[in-house]
Amino acid sequence: MHTETIMQIEIWSVGKANDAFIEEGMNYFFQKIKPNCEVTLVVLTASKKDISSDVNRNKQLEGEMVLKRLKPNHYLILLDEKGKMLTSPQWASQMQQMMNTGVKTLVILIGGAFGVSDDVKQRAQHTWSLSALVFPHQLVRLIVSEQVYRAFSILNNSPYHHS
Amino acid sequence: MHTETIMQIEIWSVGKANDAFIEEGMNYFFQKIKPNCEVTLVVLTASKKDISSDVNRNKQLEGEMVLKRLKPNHYLILLDEKGKMLTSPQWASQMQQMMNTGVKTLVILIGGAFGVSDDVKQRAQHTWSLSALVFPHQLVRLIVSEQVYRAFSILNNSPYHHS
Repeated sequence: MHTETIMQIEIWSVGKANDAFIEEGMNYFFQKIKPNCEVTLVVLTASKKDISSDVNRNKQLEGEMVLKRLKPNHYLILLDEKGKMLTSPQWASQMQQMMNTGVKTLVILIGGAFGVSDDVKQRAQHTWSLSALVFPHQLVRLIVSEQVYRAFSILNNSPYHHS
Repeated sequence: MHTETIMQIEIWSVGKANDAFIEEGMNYFFQKIKPNCEVTLVVLTASKKDISSDVNRNKQLEGEMVLKRLKPNHYLILLDEKGKMLTSPQWASQMQQMMNTGVKTLVILIGGAFGVSDDVKQRAQHTWSLSALVFPHQLVRLIVSEQVYRAFSILNNSPYHHS
């Protein structure tokens, strides 16, 4: 692995705090990622008074919450079922490329239950689909954590990933 | 959901017992699946004296272990990265179809770290790829459990799955 910069990774997820088993699983992978880079989970929760029965309104609100928190130099990958599918080695090279081009903070965004607003879609540098299947958001947090660890294993030629 | 038979589901996985967070997560989904069908995890572990450094030999051994346990009326779905990708609704209709055609035991097989033997591949009725990404086997157990629950939710029109 050739790092010209130290990249931080933040997994942003709209929704609730982790269930115990998800929290435990993420900690397991975060510990393994730590020697390579700093990784954190940021849970974005709209205040209850703002949440309405209008799906589009909620999507807009969540989008504003995300955009307000994003800094201009944040590199944004949006997880979306309409995104591009990648193999694990392709994902690893994408991470390598981001590090090579000096990305300081990679934000991987997991949208809310009804998708994300168009403003957020336009801000994203990449849109990534993990699978043709739909997974619950908490499970996506865990899957992404594992894929970040796997990417470092691939870049480091560690035996964790059998190709 | 129209069930003409009560189908049991067994998730077979070559490897080690579950890590705590995987066990907890699977129990979480198994509890939710229970009102719909009986579901169990079967972990297949080769005895230490049989495991060698020869990958192909191990694959063969694991294959024999699987085939010995399979009954002629077991319906076998093999999880393999070279399989067919499905959306969650497609997976749900496949499950519906199996129930309609009287399948009594569906076995979903997660192979070992180096794939499965050709004999097992030939025995499988379907080969299913969850994603272009590679996941660790324990995480696959959890993902499959969730997809089985999601399939029942889709077939029951429960709000768990937003299409």
